[in-house]
Amino acid sequence: MDTLSEAFHPTPVAGGVTAPKGFVAAAVSAGLKRSGRPDVAVLAASGPVPAAAVFTTNLVAAAPVVVSRPHAALGRIRAVVTNSGNANACTGERGFADARAMVDATASAIGCAPEEVIVASTGVIGVPLPVELVLPAIARAVDDLDEASGDIAANAIMTTDTFPKQTAVSVTVDGRVFTVGGMAKGSGMIKPNMATMLAYITTDAPLTSEACDAALRAAVGRTFNRITVDSDTSTNDMCVLMASGGAGGEAIAPADAAFGPVAQAVHLVCGELARMIVRDGEGATKFVEVTVRGAASEHDAELAAFAIADSPLCKTAIFGGDANWGRVAMAIGKSGACVDPGAFDVVFAGIPTCAGGAALPFDEDAAAAALARHEVDIVVDLHVGPDSATVWTCDLSYEYVRINGDYRS
Amino acid sequence: MDTLSEAFHPTPVAGGVTAPKGFVAAAVSAGLKRSGRPDVAVLAASGPVPAAAVFTTNLVAAAPVVVSRPHAALGRIRAVVTNSGNANACTGERGFADARAMVDATASAIGCAPEEVIVASTGVIGVPLPVELVLPAIARAVDDLDEASGDIAANAIMTTDTFPKQTAVSVTVDGRVFTVGGMAKGSGMIKPNMATMLAYITTDAPLTSEACDAALRAAVGRTFNRITVDSDTSTNDMCVLMASGGAGGEAIAPADAAFGPVAQAVHLVCGELARMIVRDGEGATKFVEVTVRGAASEHDAELAAFAIADSPLCKTAIFGGDANWGRVAMAIGKSGACVDPGAFDVVFAGIPTCAGGAALPFDEDAAAAALARHEVDIVVDLHVGPDSATVWTCDLSYEYVRINGDYRS
Repeated sequence: MDTLSEAFHPTPVAGGVTAPKGFVAAAVSAGLKRSGRPDVAVLAASGPVPAAAVFTTNLVAAAPVVVSRPHAALGRIRAVVTNSGNANACTGERGFADARAMVDATASAIGCAPEEVIVASTGVIGVPLPVELVLPAIARAVDDLDEASGDIAANAIMTTDTFPKQTAVSVTVDGRVFTVGGMAKGSGMIKPNMATMLAYITTDAPLTSEACDAALRAAVGRTFNRITVDSDTSTNDMCVLMASGGAGGEAIAPADAAFGPVAQAVHLVCGELARMIVRDGEGATKFVEVTVRGAASEHDAELAAFAIADSPLCKTAIFGGDANWGRVAMAIGKSGACVDPGAFDVVFAGIPTCAGGAALPFDEDAAAAALARHEVDIVVDLHVGPDSATVWTCDLSYEYVRINGDYRS
Repeated sequence: MDTLSEAFHPTPVAGGVTAPKGFVAAAVSAGLKRSGRPDVAVLAASGPVPAAAVFTTNLVAAAPVVVSRPHAALGRIRAVVTNSGNANACTGERGFADARAMVDATASAIGCAPEEVIVASTGVIGVPLPVELVLPAIARAVDDLDEASGDIAANAIMTTDTFPKQTAVSVTVDGRVFTVGGMAKGSGMIKPNMATMLAYITTDAPLTSEACDAALRAAVGRTFNRITVDSDTSTNDMCVLMASGGAGGEAIAPADAAFGPVAQAVHLVCGELARMIVRDGEGATKFVEVTVRGAASEHDAELAAFAIADSPLCKTAIFGGDANWGRVAMAIGKSGACVDPGAFDVVFAGIPTCAGGAALPFDEDAAAAALARHEVDIVVDLHVGPDSATVWTCDLSYEYVRINGDYRS
């Protein structure tokens, strides 16, 4: 599924962002969510630590993205503050002032430089942030920071998510044990495209800033950037990796032997979180893995796989339990990838349905049974080259329409 | 809405493809549609006439598209034969043989060369065509050809369409009256992208083949290529223009004075048919016109307009009657067009909701009332350049999911 090396032996551990040593978290309710649930979360290290971040490629980037980018570029971060329930996007000059006020409130409460704080927001676009509710909540959250509250923070960053998304693994390298943990939110407006939804990855491995950047970019490219719920790219996407060094020992640069296993653990955590986002896709009833092989390039494989994963016709067929593989053929043909119409094979939910571009007879009952499962694989072999890519998506159901037709979701 | 000149005075006339002089049509039932309704249609001129056609850009083109392309390239066509209920796509060598058999049966029944016949199919992908049912039906249809059956043909080419799509107009140029008529089908898998769904345009104007090609390409670029229902591009799209010359008089080449008004009439007919397809979009409850102005180029304006029109989040908001213009901002930001996040305005259903990239206060009751109408306009001004584009789409409803989740629709 992922491209992880054979020698990599990760151990699952409990918790999320506070599983690695050296991180604390907290969340409180500022009153942004109508439900009254926690909506302001703070994640912090014990001091400024090496870090890296990637942000949305949407040109209409939200104020917190614009404010956070230069901070992330400095490579050392102390804390990340997040509000849910309001995206602080398309909010004009006031939005920038509000995002900066969140940074200042966090820095002041923690006792660090504003440049060491990343700010993130998620929720409805185009509504001014009630910052007068958020600033006192930040102070309360900082008072509550502890090593047991990763779970509370993972809940607080949710919007239309139906479950919190967190995971952690440990790897042992030459007797040193490093833990990588992460949390994410996201359910709709998901096609991150060179960035992610909100996702926070922590590790106690003593990665340098360069190592954080290298590990994060490699992982994101094949995890968060390989998922789609509805083909829409958020204005607020952000993924941050912070390395506390709490595991001790020598610093780990990209050229060091320990970098590989830690980077693979980061990849693993990002992949798990990305797939959790898809499993919780708005209205999803099925988890769908689309693999395109035999492509002329990895880019072509991604184009073809995303054309299938984004196609409303493919997604509704899967929702309806119909092995309508002709829609997969349609999708690869329009994708822009190099496709030989007389060469490609399609295996739909384990059933070979098309070989050499032409229909194969197949057992409709077996196909219906395969499609009744909650996990559906679609595998296409283009037979024009050596490259492949896997993307993850969900089906398109009535519930997606209900959730997003509802007032200002 | 369209870019038609001021001096152009078209007169609506009754009928569709048989409204212009010199065309006959017929349709019969071959038994491909489970309903038993007519599913094989023939449209013919009284002899081979100047014609032009454009076809899908989907690389997995259906057999009839592959067979018809070289015929269309010759510039003179006698007849078009269409079956609905089966796309004859991804059907291998047999599919090509079946499409050629349809051509041969039509040519034989009419008494013309096979190269003078265009063949089209529409329906499910990846199921072999029951050609043994289609060939005798073609012979029966040719026996029935008459000048009153344009309406029957427009009904026969329907699949998930809920109403037939046809229109005709006349223009008078220096005392000569030219009529342009057309019919189309299409409801889902609609984002034609440099081609169209099945659409047949006829005129009695004595256009040359070059004039047919010029008029058709100009019209299609800003009509059929400016609609989307679900962002999916069919394997079978085709649009044909045939010019019978039945109106009499000198031949009309692209440089002649009469070309302009006739080309505008072709544009008008294509535009009406394209908008009918969107009005009949699968599950559509609302017709949506998206205009992007102030773009750096017409291509950028199209990119931004299609990003809005294809966005499931924008489409479900319109279905739900929610003026959630933040999703429009998201869509233009991800579109690839040049966008200044501090410059753009959004007018949503007539309500100014965003200026200079920032939220405007607006009356939610007035917005709800505007969105309750069956026609919704979204206008974005990017304020970065001089160019604009309008695209047409529909909302995304429960019914779209039902139609396409149903077995092998």
